[in-house]
Amino acid sequence: MAKTIPSRRETKQKKHSTQRSGYERKPAQVLFRDRLDGLTQLFRTDRSLVIYDRRLERAVPGFKKLISKFQYRYPVVSGEALKELRVFPSHAEKLLEMTRAVSPRDLTIVAIGGGSVGDFAGFFASVFKRGVALAHVPSTWLAAIDSSHGGKTALNAGDHKNQIGTFHPAHVTVLVRSLLMGQPDERVRDAFGELAKIAMIDGRPWVRELESSKLEGGALLWKFLAPAIQAKLRVVSRDPRETSGMRQILNLGHTIGHVLESELGWSHGFAVAQGLFFAIEFSARERLLPEAQADRALRLLSEKFGFKPELPGRALSARRLEEGLRQDKKRSGKDAVTFVFLRRLGLAERKSVSLAALVAEARRQGWVGR
Amino acid sequence: MAKTIPSRRETKQKKHSTQRSGYERKPAQVLFRDRLDGLTQLFRTDRSLVIYDRRLERAVPGFKKLISKFQYRYPVVSGEALKELRVFPSHAEKLLEMTRAVSPRDLTIVAIGGGSVGDFAGFFASVFKRGVALAHVPSTWLAAIDSSHGGKTALNAGDHKNQIGTFHPAHVTVLVRSLLMGQPDERVRDAFGELAKIAMIDGRPWVRELESSKLEGGALLWKFLAPAIQAKLRVVSRDPRETSGMRQILNLGHTIGHVLESELGWSHGFAVAQGLFFAIEFSARERLLPEAQADRALRLLSEKFGFKPELPGRALSARRLEEGLRQDKKRSGKDAVTFVFLRRLGLAERKSVSLAALVAEARRQGWVGR
Repeated sequence: MAKTIPSRRETKQKKHSTQRSGYERKPAQVLFRDRLDGLTQLFRTDRSLVIYDRRLERAVPGFKKLISKFQYRYPVVSGEALKELRVFPSHAEKLLEMTRAVSPRDLTIVAIGGGSVGDFAGFFASVFKRGVALAHVPSTWLAAIDSSHGGKTALNAGDHKNQIGTFHPAHVTVLVRSLLMGQPDERVRDAFGELAKIAMIDGRPWVRELESSKLEGGALLWKFLAPAIQAKLRVVSRDPRETSGMRQILNLGHTIGHVLESELGWSHGFAVAQGLFFAIEFSARERLLPEAQADRALRLLSEKFGFKPELPGRALSARRLEEGLRQDKKRSGKDAVTFVFLRRLGLAERKSVSLAALVAEARRQGWVGR
Repeated sequence: MAKTIPSRRETKQKKHSTQRSGYERKPAQVLFRDRLDGLTQLFRTDRSLVIYDRRLERAVPGFKKLISKFQYRYPVVSGEALKELRVFPSHAEKLLEMTRAVSPRDLTIVAIGGGSVGDFAGFFASVFKRGVALAHVPSTWLAAIDSSHGGKTALNAGDHKNQIGTFHPAHVTVLVRSLLMGQPDERVRDAFGELAKIAMIDGRPWVRELESSKLEGGALLWKFLAPAIQAKLRVVSRDPRETSGMRQILNLGHTIGHVLESELGWSHGFAVAQGLFFAIEFSARERLLPEAQADRALRLLSEKFGFKPELPGRALSARRLEEGLRQDKKRSGKDAVTFVFLRRLGLAERKSVSLAALVAEARRQGWVGR
């Protein structure tokens, strides 16, 4: 089974090696493949630089053999250290030296890995000779459903995450079933957070299908990857560089989620799911979200995805919550952030909320201790 | 006298602090001001980060006082060392720390200096929080006429120039008469090379005016800055990210010019002027450029701008020329580069030329020794 997101036509035969950076280009393609060996048909082995998570060499059967077919290979250790701006120059110099024989017009950077590998390789592709073609081959569900789409790249600087970055959409993202299906269960759970979020924002017929599906785990994710990605790309296309603010609705669940992630070390997807519980209850309390819709959203989180609110209790103080919120990139003023409310399944809405009001609501819901 | 490039309307009153990166934005503005103090009216002093050549503090009367009005200031030492990718992380961390209180949506980076300062500050603006607003205030004629327009930013990596970079057009470029007029004569000469180039490419009525103008030196440059910039921006607007190749015609005179610059240490503008002599003669010999048009172009170079061909003789060997040409970013194949020929004043044309043919022509014209 090789399927394509319906509305995006696959360019048959054409190898992705001659396109350059360019927002002038047509929208990114999303391709689905069953096995890794599809990659050598998609990308020219003599003109692609494969930047990949070196753990895949051992974890994924056949990976090493596949990679060895590509002339330019750069294994990296995934994780936040890879995204450190301080180490970027030494990586960049090596990559430049390695690919000196290839014209930048012909080169494609192929990133195979999770979010950190995609961020690093995507940033490199965006600044290497002022931008070369980029392909994402996500190896984690979270990257497959979220970070490999939408064009954001990011490095960390001076202890702060994602301070340096670019918008550089992949020319093609390839979702490989065998690569994704090999992941442990907790990775599935992590992606459920983002799937729940995009389902709530989008609310189209596929969400009903999702609610009633009998599939579980990876099989469920694989089935709903295509409409979930389409839903995200619809939002992104209205505001590709986050200039109008429209794109911010993708932040549903992330305002509190990011604080839980950074302050308590919770995984991203799980923290987002918790942030969704908060956002739903806050939206309902503000009378923005009718009760029936709130129930439906909560059922999606709990019955479909198995989440329940995990109040951190004393582990998170009001003071730390407020400090965490101050770091929010969606700050809308000195003491306020842009918060995304849910109006109904399929309609999210941004509003500026004061930090004080957010902390008070978190206290009311029991997210922070006294 | 405060004048504006005719076809671009100046936004009265509006301070350039709320625009973000964005190629979605309207074309860059070019503003002309007589004195430096116009800058405090253009940019909010509490929301602008001024990155400037520290030499200006001593060289330009009133500069220090003006700069002290801005809350965020970052003096740099201009030159190629500033563009070294290895030192970028430490600059970036300091700049991040300094501006932490300002939302990226509100921040404008104001670059005051020559080409290296503009390249560094432009690159920083393009990657800081995925892109913030940028203003160029060039302090050299060469930056005023060329590098501060068109959106290219660049850093050097691993002994190679301009390997890492972005396209990030300034939201506004401000040309300040008092700042530019204070430069020594050799800087004027340097800009003449680029002015001659753009005049040949553009060929519109302003070029006749230029040919017959009685003005000299800085006064001549100041008068023709506006049409020369407009001419460059017309080319850039057809190919803003150098994807179609159209923009490459701006490379007229640069193929040989860059080699003379890097191999012999000649200044950029002077080397480009020499490259123009080569290109004109090559174009004529290939019967692409009629004799009368070649004469007119040569007269522009010699009579108007005082250049004459300076054959380096034995200082440049055929081997070094060929090696230099191999580094050319406009390589069109393993052993060829895209060369820009002149067909007439106002019409340049790209063609792929083999390195062997270029070296043979250079030998014929006497540019390389035996």
